[in-house]
Amino acid sequence: MSNRIVLVTGGARSGKSRFSEGLVLQSEGNPFYIATCPVLDDETADRVRRHRLRREAANWTTIEEERNLVGAVRLAAAEDAGAVLIDCLTLWINNLLFEDPGLSEDGMARKAEELVAALREGPPVCVLVINEVGLGIVPESPLSRRFRDLSGRCAQIVAAAADEVYFTVAGIAKRIK
Amino acid sequence: MSNRIVLVTGGARSGKSRFSEGLVLQSEGNPFYIATCPVLDDETADRVRRHRLRREAANWTTIEEERNLVGAVRLAAAEDAGAVLIDCLTLWINNLLFEDPGLSEDGMARKAEELVAALREGPPVCVLVINEVGLGIVPESPLSRRFRDLSGRCAQIVAAAADEVYFTVAGIAKRIK
Amino acid sequence: MSNRIVLVTGGARSGKSRFSEGLVLQSEGNPFYIATCPVLDDETADRVRRHRLRREAANWTTIEEERNLVGAVRLAAAEDAGAVLIDCLTLWINNLLFEDPGLSEDGMARKAEELVAALREGPPVCVLVINEVGLGIVPESPLSRRFRDLSGRCAQIVAAAADEVYFTVAGIAKRIK
Repeated sequence: MSNRIVLVTGGARSGKSRFSEGLVLQSEGNPFYIATCPVLDDETADRVRRHRLRREAANWTTIEEERNLVGAVRLAAAEDAGAVLIDCLTLWINNLLFEDPGLSEDGMARKAEELVAALREGPPVCVLVINEVGLGIVPESPLSRRFRDLSGRCAQIVAAAADEVYFTVAGIAKRIK
Repeated sequence: MSNRIVLVTGGARSGKSRFSEGLVLQSEGNPFYIATCPVLDDETADRVRRHRLRREAANWTTIEEERNLVGAVRLAAAEDAGAVLIDCLTLWINNLLFEDPGLSEDGMARKAEELVAALREGPPVCVLVINEVGLGIVPESPLSRRFRDLSGRCAQIVAAAADEVYFTVAGIAKRIK
Repeated sequence: MSNRIVLVTGGARSGKSRFSEGLVLQSEGNPFYIATCPVLDDETADRVRRHRLRREAANWTTIEEERNLVGAVRLAAAEDAGAVLIDCLTLWINNLLFEDPGLSEDGMARKAEELVAALREGPPVCVLVINEVGLGIVPESPLSRRFRDLSGRCAQIVAAAADEVYFTVAGIAKRIK
C-alpha cells in the first residue's frame, strides 16, 4: 500500500503551516517535523519559536535539516514516524541556492525528483509546505529570478507526485488536486 | 438574526472593488462606503476619483476614515446603512503602520479582532476588500515584510469571521469560503 | 458558429505554457504559435529555446510578433490555423510599454478590445497566456506599478471575452470560468 503525499502551497502568512500541522495531527502515529530553517536573524528566530511552541505542545519529534531532505525523510521513516511535516521547501531551495549560487533548473529538478523518491518510501503521511512566490512583478535581481524559477519548478515536480495539493489564501485551504 | 460579513481578496487590478460594489448594490437599503484611502499622490488620486464617480452615480454615502474603522462601522450602522463596503483593509493597515512603524503582528491582530466585533454589530451586510500581497518574492525591505505579515494576519482573522470569502483573478471572483 | 477563446493565467513557472500547448494540441487542425518575446538576454534566450524545441517537435507554425497581435491573429486565420497559442500577453504589454512608456490604462484597454475583436474573427481555437503579476507587494518603481495595472486591466478584458479561463498553480490548472 502506498503512502500519502500532500503539498501545501500559498502565500506568506496565508495559514500554510497551521493547516499542514492539522493534517499531520489528524494522522495516526507519531508526528515528525523536518525543519529546514536556518535561524539567521531575530525576525526569523521569533517566527520559528512560535511555530515550535505550537508543535512542542503536541509532542512532535523535530529533525533540523537545512539541505539533506532525503536523509531526513529516511530518518523519520526509520524512527517510525506516523506522519512527517516538511516546513518548508522554500527555505530548502534557499539553502541549496545559498550553498551553490549556480544551481540550475535541471539541477533543482534532479533534487526534487530524489526527494519525491524518498517520500514514496517514507512515512505513511508526508506533508510538504512551499511558498508560492511567482505571482508578483518580475524581481529585479537575477538571483531572485533564479530562486523564483527553481521554486516553481520544484513545486511542479512535487505537485505532480502528490496525492493531494492545497492552495491557501487568507487562512483558507482549497484543494486543487 | 446575525448580519452578513464578506471578505473579498485578490491581486491589484483583479476586479475586487467592482465585484464588492456589486455585492453591496444587490443588498437592500442604503449603500455606504468607508474609504480608507489617504490621497497622497496623483496616481492614487486618479484611481480614487474613478472609483468615486462609479459610486456617486449609484447614490452611495461615503465615510472617509483612514484608521478608526470601528468608529466608521458604528457610524454607518447608526445612520441606518443597509450595506457597507470597506475599501480597503490594505490601506487601513498601511495607515496604521505609517502612524506606528513598530506595530506588531499581535497588535495588528487585536485591531482586526476589534474590527470584527464592530462588524458583527454593524449594518446587515458588511463587505471588506483586501489586497493579497504575499504571493511574490520576499520583499527586501523589513518594512515591506512587516506590512506583508500584518496584511496576511489581518486577512486570516477577518476571513475566519466572515460568512463568505472570495478570491478574485482577472475580474473573476471565486468563492473560497 | 463562434470560435473558442481561452485565457490561461498564473504565476511564473506555474505550468501555463505547457498546459496551453496541450489545449492547442488537443484541437483539430494546424497548431500555430504567436511568440511575443523579444530575445534580449541569455536568460530569456535559453527559456525561449526550450519552449521552441518542445513546439518544433510537434510541427507548430511560429509567427514572431512583438506588438501587432491583431495582425498576427489575422495572419494565422488566413493561413488556416486550427488553433493558435499567443504566448504571452505579458510580454506584449511589456513591449507596448517599452515603445510608449506613457501608455495609459485606457489606451491599454483599447488595444485589448481590438485584440478581442480580432480573436472573435480568428482561428477556431485561440489560447492566450498571461502572467498574474498583481499578488505581491506594491512595486516601488512607478513603471512597474504601471505595468502591473495595465496587465491586470488587459487580463480582465480578455477574461471577460473568453469562453474559458484557467488559473495555474504548481503545474495544476484550475478552471475559474
